[in-house]
Amino acid sequence: MQNPVLVEVTRGDRVESAHRGMVAVVDGDGNLVMGLGEIELPVYPRSAVKSMQALPLVENGAAAAYGFGNRELAMSCASHSGEPEHVAAAGDMVARAGLSEVDFECGSHWSFYPKVMIEQVRDHNKPDQLFNNCSGKHAGFLCVSCHAGVDHHGYTGYDHFVQEGIRDVMEDLTGAPLGTDVCGYDGCSIPTYAVPLKSIAHGFARMATGVRLGAERAKAAKMLMSACMAEPFYVAGTGRACTELMELAPGRIFVKVGAEGVYCGAIPELGLGIALKCEDGAERAANVMIAAVLAKLLTDDAELSAKLAEMARPKLSNWNKMMVGGLQPAGELA
Amino acid sequence: MQNPVLVEVTRGDRVESAHRGMVAVVDGDGNLVMGLGEIELPVYPRSAVKSMQALPLVENGAAAAYGFGNRELAMSCASHSGEPEHVAAAGDMVARAGLSEVDFECGSHWSFYPKVMIEQVRDHNKPDQLFNNCSGKHAGFLCVSCHAGVDHHGYTGYDHFVQEGIRDVMEDLTGAPLGTDVCGYDGCSIPTYAVPLKSIAHGFARMATGVRLGAERAKAAKMLMSACMAEPFYVAGTGRACTELMELAPGRIFVKVGAEGVYCGAIPELGLGIALKCEDGAERAANVMIAAVLAKLLTDDAELSAKLAEMARPKLSNWNKMMVGGLQPAGELA
Repeated sequence: MQNPVLVEVTRGDRVESAHRGMVAVVDGDGNLVMGLGEIELPVYPRSAVKSMQALPLVENGAAAAYGFGNRELAMSCASHSGEPEHVAAAGDMVARAGLSEVDFECGSHWSFYPKVMIEQVRDHNKPDQLFNNCSGKHAGFLCVSCHAGVDHHGYTGYDHFVQEGIRDVMEDLTGAPLGTDVCGYDGCSIPTYAVPLKSIAHGFARMATGVRLGAERAKAAKMLMSACMAEPFYVAGTGRACTELMELAPGRIFVKVGAEGVYCGAIPELGLGIALKCEDGAERAANVMIAAVLAKLLTDDAELSAKLAEMARPKLSNWNKMMVGGLQPAGELA
Repeated sequence: MQNPVLVEVTRGDRVESAHRGMVAVVDGDGNLVMGLGEIELPVYPRSAVKSMQALPLVENGAAAAYGFGNRELAMSCASHSGEPEHVAAAGDMVARAGLSEVDFECGSHWSFYPKVMIEQVRDHNKPDQLFNNCSGKHAGFLCVSCHAGVDHHGYTGYDHFVQEGIRDVMEDLTGAPLGTDVCGYDGCSIPTYAVPLKSIAHGFARMATGVRLGAERAKAAKMLMSACMAEPFYVAGTGRACTELMELAPGRIFVKVGAEGVYCGAIPELGLGIALKCEDGAERAANVMIAAVLAKLLTDDAELSAKLAEMARPKLSNWNKMMVGGLQPAGELA
């Protein structure tokens, strides 16, 4: 891979570590607005495309049938922190389809976020599947299957109705053919497909603009993005970058993180889609990259751009709360 | 930075993420045996040089005066996981100097290792300083100060007797001048000095061989490395790479991890010192790099080399224990 250094980690006066990355910003017609690094390289978008994976939930009528509002739709696109509100919402979603925690196929884990994990560990003997950061997405999958009258067992499998529907949607949005040759399996066991970064960005631009999308799909995409921007806590959680970035400019910024340093996003008012990946997979660097990219794209709003630029320069303190360094954008993102 | 990709992270059939790094392997006379990437670049060695920082403990007579054996010496070089044995050992070390947990200046944190953290969280309201992964090193610092009759308060400060002693030792071993211009502060608040990677490796080669070291220093270095190799559990903990690598070939491999993807090590029978750093600071990649480097250096022992090569290819499984990918050495380390 040949990608530029986009984030530096400093300690004292020196750069201690560096993160490389690739960034693609594309409009609805597929024109490249910003391109850094190997943007034609197929990358696994992981959880950053959950809003694409949630389109069938709206399109097949399940979301309406089960009375899902913004919170439930945001949960279906979420990598949440497992806070009590998230866990309750995931359980409530499947209960509306007559299902429960045992029907999930995502596996269990404690929250990735120490403060939440500590509470979970003290209140529970072991984590259940509702704690899984993907439980909202899986609740959506279960509802898609139930509403269509399809046996939900094995809904995570490559050949299941649910995953076939996701492949169709993602091929339409990104224009990339998806098959077993580009398929890996995700942390929650569903297929994830390697797609050129630029094509992923184009898919998000089309979701944000509706350019060359069917009317139903354009409407569903708008509903999901709007839901996430209206309920950003349900997309991630307390102190999380996705939540804080979307809270900064309600209704104007859509972002979603994925494992291994991926971000996807859109700026609806500019009609732009964004996809980026940190070469080494570090989320700390991807958080800086997305904030820095948004700051660059939104310079017309000086106040917002300044706040985003500040979020792109987090400080690092040690166990005694001494400031020891920080992260900062570098190269084209500086 | 211009460093080669040395580790690939795979998912399905594809490389998902990549880690770059720099590796220096040097003999006691300073001859380069293996050099990859920018080995002249000054890097903060962080906790990977704890065995250098522990030399004053042996040299000033404190270790003997307080009756420290291999376990205590290993703890003084450790980044431990906070398992009950580690916590007890750190408390016992300072008790011999009449001190206790309140005298530490490292700060508190829960264990970084989920299994240990869960036990700590269930058994304690909050973490204390003995849980800090550096508590063994700090116990050593407190003992150095007490044995010398120097007020231990402020022992983490740049100008304190303890830190001055460390600077002297590290300048002698690495040949690099250390001052405020190359000084950052570590997670546990002590100074960490940026030193060219090749010079750090040379320092470890000299510790392993005694080449051009005073007799007392050579003896102390041998004692500390031998203690770590004899009690590898006390250098790290259950399932940790440092512990497992040293257990693989008792007395033949010395390794120590540091934050931000650093490893230092030595192979006494070959008279070689090792220093490496993952450019992006990822420990998962540094673990692969050190195992791959050791496998390459120890090819004369085919069985050991094969075991090391296997440790350099860890598998990744997901929340359902499905094998989804792995890490593997790349480029010159493949």
